[in-house]
Amino acid sequence: MTVITSDPLDRNRFPVDEWALVETEFAPDDQGMAETIFAVGNGYLGMRGNLDEGRGGAAYGTFINGFHETWPIRHAEEAFGFARVGQTIVNVPDAKVIRLYIDDEPFVVAEADILRYSRRVDFRDGVLVRELEWRTPSGKRVLIRSRRLVSFTDRHLAVVEYEVTMLDADASVLISSQILNRQDLGDEYHAGMRAAATFDPRKAESFADRVLQPALKRAHGTRYVLGYQTTNSGMTIAVGAEHDLETDNEWQQSSQIEDDLAKHVYRIQAKAGRRIRVVKTITYHTSRGVPPRELADRCDRTLDRALEMAPEEIFDTQRDWLDDFWERSDVELPGHPILQQAIRWNIFQLAQATARTDGQGVAAKGVTGSGYGGHYFWDTEIYVLPFLSYTAPNVARNALRFRQGMLDAARERATELNQRGALFPWRTINGLESSAYYAAGTAQYHIDADITHALMQYVAATGDEDFLARGAIDILVETARLWADLGFWRSNGDQKFHIDGVTGPDEYTTVVDDNLYTNVMARANLWSAVRMCEELMVKNPTAYARMVTRLGLEEHELRGWTAAADAMEIPFDAHRGIHPQDAQFLDKELWDLDSTPESKRPLLLHYHPLVIYRFQVLKQADVVLALFLQGAEFTPAEKRRNFEYYDALTTGDSTLSAVVQSIIAAEVGHHRLARSYFLSSLFVDLADLHHNTADGVHVASTGGIWSSLVSGFGGMRDHDGRITFNPRLPEDWEKLVFRMTIKGSRVRVTVEQESITFTIEEGEGVTVHVGHEKYEVARSAPVVVPLSDQGPRIETPPPTTSDLRGMLRADGSVVTASIPMISLDRTEIDVDVQA
Amino acid sequence: MTVITSDPLDRNRFPVDEWALVETEFAPDDQGMAETIFAVGNGYLGMRGNLDEGRGGAAYGTFINGFHETWPIRHAEEAFGFARVGQTIVNVPDAKVIRLYIDDEPFVVAEADILRYSRRVDFRDGVLVRELEWRTPSGKRVLIRSRRLVSFTDRHLAVVEYEVTMLDADASVLISSQILNRQDLGDEYHAGMRAAATFDPRKAESFADRVLQPALKRAHGTRYVLGYQTTNSGMTIAVGAEHDLETDNEWQQSSQIEDDLAKHVYRIQAKAGRRIRVVKTITYHTSRGVPPRELADRCDRTLDRALEMAPEEIFDTQRDWLDDFWERSDVELPGHPILQQAIRWNIFQLAQATARTDGQGVAAKGVTGSGYGGHYFWDTEIYVLPFLSYTAPNVARNALRFRQGMLDAARERATELNQRGALFPWRTINGLESSAYYAAGTAQYHIDADITHALMQYVAATGDEDFLARGAIDILVETARLWADLGFWRSNGDQKFHIDGVTGPDEYTTVVDDNLYTNVMARANLWSAVRMCEELMVKNPTAYARMVTRLGLEEHELRGWTAAADAMEIPFDAHRGIHPQDAQFLDKELWDLDSTPESKRPLLLHYHPLVIYRFQVLKQADVVLALFLQGAEFTPAEKRRNFEYYDALTTGDSTLSAVVQSIIAAEVGHHRLARSYFLSSLFVDLADLHHNTADGVHVASTGGIWSSLVSGFGGMRDHDGRITFNPRLPEDWEKLVFRMTIKGSRVRVTVEQESITFTIEEGEGVTVHVGHEKYEVARSAPVVVPLSDQGPRIETPPPTTSDLRGMLRADGSVVTASIPMISLDRTEIDVDVQA
Repeated sequence: MTVITSDPLDRNRFPVDEWALVETEFAPDDQGMAETIFAVGNGYLGMRGNLDEGRGGAAYGTFINGFHETWPIRHAEEAFGFARVGQTIVNVPDAKVIRLYIDDEPFVVAEADILRYSRRVDFRDGVLVRELEWRTPSGKRVLIRSRRLVSFTDRHLAVVEYEVTMLDADASVLISSQILNRQDLGDEYHAGMRAAATFDPRKAESFADRVLQPALKRAHGTRYVLGYQTTNSGMTIAVGAEHDLETDNEWQQSSQIEDDLAKHVYRIQAKAGRRIRVVKTITYHTSRGVPPRELADRCDRTLDRALEMAPEEIFDTQRDWLDDFWERSDVELPGHPILQQAIRWNIFQLAQATARTDGQGVAAKGVTGSGYGGHYFWDTEIYVLPFLSYTAPNVARNALRFRQGMLDAARERATELNQRGALFPWRTINGLESSAYYAAGTAQYHIDADITHALMQYVAATGDEDFLARGAIDILVETARLWADLGFWRSNGDQKFHIDGVTGPDEYTTVVDDNLYTNVMARANLWSAVRMCEELMVKNPTAYARMVTRLGLEEHELRGWTAAADAMEIPFDAHRGIHPQDAQFLDKELWDLDSTPESKRPLLLHYHPLVIYRFQVLKQADVVLALFLQGAEFTPAEKRRNFEYYDALTTGDSTLSAVVQSIIAAEVGHHRLARSYFLSSLFVDLADLHHNTADGVHVASTGGIWSSLVSGFGGMRDHDGRITFNPRLPEDWEKLVFRMTIKGSRVRVTVEQESITFTIEEGEGVTVHVGHEKYEVARSAPVVVPLSDQGPRIETPPPTTSDLRGMLRADGSVVTASIPMISLDRTEIDVDVQA
Repeated sequence: MTVITSDPLDRNRFPVDEWALVETEFAPDDQGMAETIFAVGNGYLGMRGNLDEGRGGAAYGTFINGFHETWPIRHAEEAFGFARVGQTIVNVPDAKVIRLYIDDEPFVVAEADILRYSRRVDFRDGVLVRELEWRTPSGKRVLIRSRRLVSFTDRHLAVVEYEVTMLDADASVLISSQILNRQDLGDEYHAGMRAAATFDPRKAESFADRVLQPALKRAHGTRYVLGYQTTNSGMTIAVGAEHDLETDNEWQQSSQIEDDLAKHVYRIQAKAGRRIRVVKTITYHTSRGVPPRELADRCDRTLDRALEMAPEEIFDTQRDWLDDFWERSDVELPGHPILQQAIRWNIFQLAQATARTDGQGVAAKGVTGSGYGGHYFWDTEIYVLPFLSYTAPNVARNALRFRQGMLDAARERATELNQRGALFPWRTINGLESSAYYAAGTAQYHIDADITHALMQYVAATGDEDFLARGAIDILVETARLWADLGFWRSNGDQKFHIDGVTGPDEYTTVVDDNLYTNVMARANLWSAVRMCEELMVKNPTAYARMVTRLGLEEHELRGWTAAADAMEIPFDAHRGIHPQDAQFLDKELWDLDSTPESKRPLLLHYHPLVIYRFQVLKQADVVLALFLQGAEFTPAEKRRNFEYYDALTTGDSTLSAVVQSIIAAEVGHHRLARSYFLSSLFVDLADLHHNTADGVHVASTGGIWSSLVSGFGGMRDHDGRITFNPRLPEDWEKLVFRMTIKGSRVRVTVEQESITFTIEEGEGVTVHVGHEKYEVARSAPVVVPLSDQGPRIETPPPTTSDLRGMLRADGSVVTASIPMISLDRTEIDVDVQA
């Protein structure tokens, strides 16, 4: 973990604004990161924050959720059942390019004499605004202003507005608006960046052959539409742009259209002081195979419809949508503007990653980059769906329906893996497993339980049981079947149900037996399947009967699931008082993390997997994640001991880690550490803490930020659908305010040092618990619950690896009370981050 | 295991001959296998048994040991330290092609009207002889006879003799002798075979781009030399051929030379009854980078020298060499001609695979095919070196020197894997790891101990301690360092030295902790290193001092090795009385082998590795191999219990398995099973029992045949250099005779039912043990030792998986005495195989 000991952002460049990310200086060396954090998107369409002029940046990218190319995975050494179909998100034609020439001199921000510069994305506007003043080589000053919007209300729509004003001299102004197929022109990345690229398995594959086959070119007037079909996956896309010029200057226009380029050029005889404004209305339509011609027609309709509105109307609509979003989703931290800004930026990213995914999943990088190939992982279910289920249930349901749509492929995959039921792919776009490294891929069977967990959470949060009845129950049944078949009763007669040869969330320990997380989650999965089947049988016998027929469900199966779940092996080490991460974990050698220098992090880029796997060392929370998701299954003492043991071994090399560590640190009382983890998650992308923000936003971490606030400091748990609060507000936080929509009612939760207050903002009312007490919150009046304390507060930092090593050498046990405060990192974390 | 219940060869096609493999019928559908079993080679150069005319066969191949192309391994998902340099043996230009046209009609065996056919390789001649009579489409009868020899005495030399005689009519005879670069002409495989090829990780990679870059063409008179350099690896090769025509007919000749083809054509006006004989003298020279021009000069010199001899002299020299070989190496089984033939064929393959490897290793397929890419594995050390150390010590030393030459690369690999010392590559040609699947590759750290084992065996068998002093001691030191660093003292204070995260020989169970085989072998490695260092210090202080300086050896290291070895964890399950294959093995679910149909074998082609790894199921002997190699470390009772337990779980999907199972079955008393395993090894290739003989001879299995005879039925063990015999002669074998060269003396060992006799054939004398008694065998007179019995004879077959399952369900233990005889396979194995 990178420990945040002071404000990690350069505030000269990024001044604090509670409602916006603002950049006031152009940093040519840091564009990859900036392009990501200034990306705009709506969950369907994403445009990286590339400079409008489309030159001299780092990674030019425009992505459409799920629009991918396939390729045969060629394994260096083949084996039966290895993933076969590679899937990679395509960098779709870039329609946002607007090149500018003044007196034939090109405007390239990185090389230009910039007198004034600002870039800003306002979280309430959802618009990226750039404003700058350029002194041309011949000394003329030009004001250039652009706005870029990807619409939340019309997912196919984007608008770019580009304004040029000669400030003190006339000039010949040429504005060349383009649609550019960078994917096949090899023009995605700045040469310097490509050269610097070294081995990193987290990046997307690049293609050797043409990806987008030109299928259609249309140009009429100021409108252009290009259509393509991907070579292998057969997906189709059309991209259109309509232009409008507003100026009092004289001008001419011309056009050009080719397979990989459409260009509309305005040549303007600009007089000083006369503003030139180009409005470019953009649309993308995609499909799995509808002919490009039909998609082009859809583009025309979208453009026609958009043109019926003035551009300002579109911008207003965007603001209205965001007003509603923030009403549902805002988390307030009064008095901490730096944190407030970062919190809102993270939540805004959640909107941009999920709002209009519609029939698709939520990719690891949303639509902001090609990292992880645009694939969907368990990130969606475990890190993003809690936020969605409690703030945007409709979006949550879509994400779950997307998984439901993958069931057939998951059934086939289970068969291929010699198992009954369904096995969801570890990483995929089209439903087929595309993880080429099974040890940290296919072996993560827990994805089945993760999906079930999210489904159950959604149903409990929304009360939408009808969703199960209409077919989502199939997910429960097929995953339960998988677990019942995968696990086994050991022949030594220990009467336990074991699950061998799987990988848990921690990818630094793979293919193990009885992974604690997996077993605990599988048990919950089995129990949920039985309970939901039984409830459906009673409440909706018709739906139940249809399901039984559809799935061939037999009664003995439910009994088998209960038996397996009840007897599930839950590894526990009585000596240390902790739950081993897996059956063999505690026998491994301890990795000496304290002596592993920064230059060797993350471990995965510096050590062979075999080396890493041989040690007790974690990439990310594993047992600790179980303590969060299945908290009711562990005692407070177990939680503390487990947390302290595993925390010392956790590298946090995955951004999925810190948010979870933060939540459990808060629960068990390691309040300083909880804050420290929270901070390093909060700034993962804004401060590029993992050095790969250029590849896209870490969407799971942004979801984790919401969970850290609501479940970590807010202390919210929803085990078995019961909403309980045990707040853990940091000492120097006066107040934390967040919203949750529970069964259709929106409640505002205000956590303060002495109390927690529930106020209904919408709907009838909700039932909540604080500690062991139950409260009915009605629309009529807020409920204020006094808090006697905020849980334990442990002042000694948890042990380090050296402590574990030392202590284990002595007597094999971990006695945290005696741990000396030797870690500078850990004692430094309390430095405040204040504006 | 395929159980041999009757003679597996079609004796109409392959009549029995104790000294030759003979084929009397041409089988067009079975040529891939036939090309392998009729291959001729000398360990350096190998020519598959392709039909001379070079058309209509299965896999045309000419291979030179170690002559390989490299390519960058592209991993579907990359990680640090994965193997980077792929290496594949090259199919070098085919110089054996002699095409024949009669009256312009091509002679293609597969399509011709063959009146009489025979093909024969005599193990005493080392010559492949084909003789056939063809009736041309116009009805003329032609006698065609060819001989093909790859010289054991001049490794660069091969001779093809091709005779044509028109029997009853005159004709125009055209003989076109060629050198053909099939590798780059894409002409290696018959189209039908390529099309039928399906996924099989055991086959070699094929190349997309040109491999052999033409570098030189020479033609003068009847001599042609072509030179090439490989594109990536930069290796160079020159191939030359000289022609001589002997005939009383009138004739003309012409020639042609191109980059990938050299052709010498004789056009003969043949009269009936007048023999036409073409002698083609062939030579290959290769190097890591000597210019092709220089290699071409070497070709000229080899050809010049060969031409000084009459062809018959070359054939005679070959026979002389083989006379000597058989004197050193023959194993006689009087009264069992079918077995005798197969035994000699296997031993002959050992000669062909190893005789002239000189500075190279012994590839998995020798020089008979491209299977496994021409790579060297542990096969050499564990399966082939016992034969070599006891019959051809000079060849054994070369093989070990070859490993010694890889030490630098192995040191670098160890560093890359975060380890001290040296880690030999699991599979390689050039010394770099090229196993692209680490779980069944790099993780097989045991290769270090295997090499050490073979080295110690060689030194003890030969008394060649000087070999250590001259540098081979470095292997011991660097491998000991690896083990000392790889293992660790567990922090729970069990005072045991553990080795985690490795794969043993059984590739159906990977990346485990405390693999029994690995730990036992590593322990021996550590002990040997200490002992040899100490001996060297005493016997040769100068060499010792040089080594200490060279390797920076410190005294505490030796103490550390002893401590680690003495405390090595040797897993033992007291309840079952067996050694678990690894720390977790016995906790796994039992694979129900009894219910796994043949159509699902071998498992690796039908189940995902994750599925296989989850079960107790073995690809090949693992613990059982340890029982053989480190037999002194186990009690007879342990051996029996271990054997019975693991035998039930062993698929034998690897040909490395059956020979070892046979040896231990014999030792513990499962005499029928020992014979059964022996038979299925004996015919692995002759009967194509693993369906991939077309890819080349299973050389390890041929070595294992020698071990099965000498160590299995002959009961020879050489633990710590002490030669001991405890024979286990099958009841119906009257006599087994074999030779061993021990410290320079050759002893003939004759095992009979009632006695074992030692006769010195060469040298001064040897010391041997029979049972616990020691015998000095002098040159003067044979020593006859009466045998009271031949060990235990267990009449009940060992348990099957079902038995294990049933018994384990009951009380968790294995009680073999009570096992019912339920396995038809196992009760059928006693059917005799007799001519």
